[in-house]
Amino acid sequence: MGNGAGADTRSVTAKVLAMLEAFTPATPDLSLSELARRAGVSLPTAHRRAAELVRWGALERGTDGRYRIGLRLWEVASLAPRGLALRDVAMPFLEDLYEVTHENVQLAVREGLELVFVERIAGRYAVPVLTRVGGRFALHATGVGLVLLAHAPTEVQQQALTSPLHAYTPKTITDPDRLREVLAAVRRGGYAVSDGQVTLDALSVAAPIRGRNDEVVAAVSLVVRAGTAEPMNLVPLVQAAGRGISRMLQPRFAG
Amino acid sequence: MGNGAGADTRSVTAKVLAMLEAFTPATPDLSLSELARRAGVSLPTAHRRAAELVRWGALERGTDGRYRIGLRLWEVASLAPRGLALRDVAMPFLEDLYEVTHENVQLAVREGLELVFVERIAGRYAVPVLTRVGGRFALHATGVGLVLLAHAPTEVQQQALTSPLHAYTPKTITDPDRLREVLAAVRRGGYAVSDGQVTLDALSVAAPIRGRNDEVVAAVSLVVRAGTAEPMNLVPLVQAAGRGISRMLQPRFAG
Repeated sequence: MGNGAGADTRSVTAKVLAMLEAFTPATPDLSLSELARRAGVSLPTAHRRAAELVRWGALERGTDGRYRIGLRLWEVASLAPRGLALRDVAMPFLEDLYEVTHENVQLAVREGLELVFVERIAGRYAVPVLTRVGGRFALHATGVGLVLLAHAPTEVQQQALTSPLHAYTPKTITDPDRLREVLAAVRRGGYAVSDGQVTLDALSVAAPIRGRNDEVVAAVSLVVRAGTAEPMNLVPLVQAAGRGISRMLQPRFAG
Repeated sequence: MGNGAGADTRSVTAKVLAMLEAFTPATPDLSLSELARRAGVSLPTAHRRAAELVRWGALERGTDGRYRIGLRLWEVASLAPRGLALRDVAMPFLEDLYEVTHENVQLAVREGLELVFVERIAGRYAVPVLTRVGGRFALHATGVGLVLLAHAPTEVQQQALTSPLHAYTPKTITDPDRLREVLAAVRRGGYAVSDGQVTLDALSVAAPIRGRNDEVVAAVSLVVRAGTAEPMNLVPLVQAAGRGISRMLQPRFAG
């Protein structure tokens, strides 16, 4: 695609979305030719369409001539109920968790076979974590991921358990049968512990957040340096935050 | 538009963007017919295009059949340098401001003649504020707005000063000459104070954040209950946060 050979049967909508999707965490700014190549469109088409997207504010063009995602798109996207809206409800509870621990606090939702971090409060002296707001991660390694996977529909679990499970560290659970047991324990206990399964020096404790129909819609976690805290001492704290946020999502509170 | 009468000369790109822009803070979820009407397209067109947007994840469709902004759009939009990227750099400084004051902390950028709140940490017992992350506000009333307007290009200031200036309270500055003086004082002093100019019970102190070319790219503020603090005691605190964030935006730190 993009070299003019072969008919491009994608709809214009798909091509517009391809222009947006060309931007990634690794490539947050693109030249016009990079944008054209990644979106699979010709240079003149990319030029015309980029101009429209800049006019609307979906893209911005810097003084260096490179394109970036525009603030207007971020404004519209901030209306995503599973993005900023969830985050706004959760924020006071995340702040409380941060304030009493000064550790990393994370809020995540599931998107297909991955999780997306919706919020992260990083303690300045807390253990470094590999995450970024708006970033994705596999479900089988992190505390929030284990909670989200444990409560995902059966077909999602099935798909996750039959996909290759990447070993982030020697402690990451990569055996499907063992993972299945862990997920059952997460459902029974109402929390997940990931000890050195993402980076060896980090321990995460996560709890579910339930939405209107009592289904699990998100997960909250506390990430501390491994060996500095007894996981079981953190569980009630994280569970209380999860329950508090869940309560705010129930019909009588939800806006 | 949308009733089939008259040719719709908008490009498909514009029509796709119109579908996204149909969602607003007041209308975060829409039925198909509401979506079609607001985007100015026929019902079949809206149906086809919404299906494509749902497939990609720009929209999500709830069990109630209503459309909402999708998490995938929020993920892509999180790459906006003036959105989450700025917010990630600023967050440790905003947390420090919050922790030492437990008051409202705000981070905003200018978009045309308005400001957009990029981050907000709201103290649970702090004075209520009218803002929301991703929300817009006029420039002439808030502390962050006064900072952003004071450092805006001359033509933007000219346009703002010749537009009607809404009186949020009797204390809002609505006289262009008086506002011009205030903006000059903001530039000289390196901070802005908005005392009861948005709501009578709130006082805000704001300072500029400077980017790569030393131009003002954002503003940070502390909003406290009017009468509970001497503004001049808050100024150094907010200015220090502004300078700290500015330093992180300078080339040697910026990623």
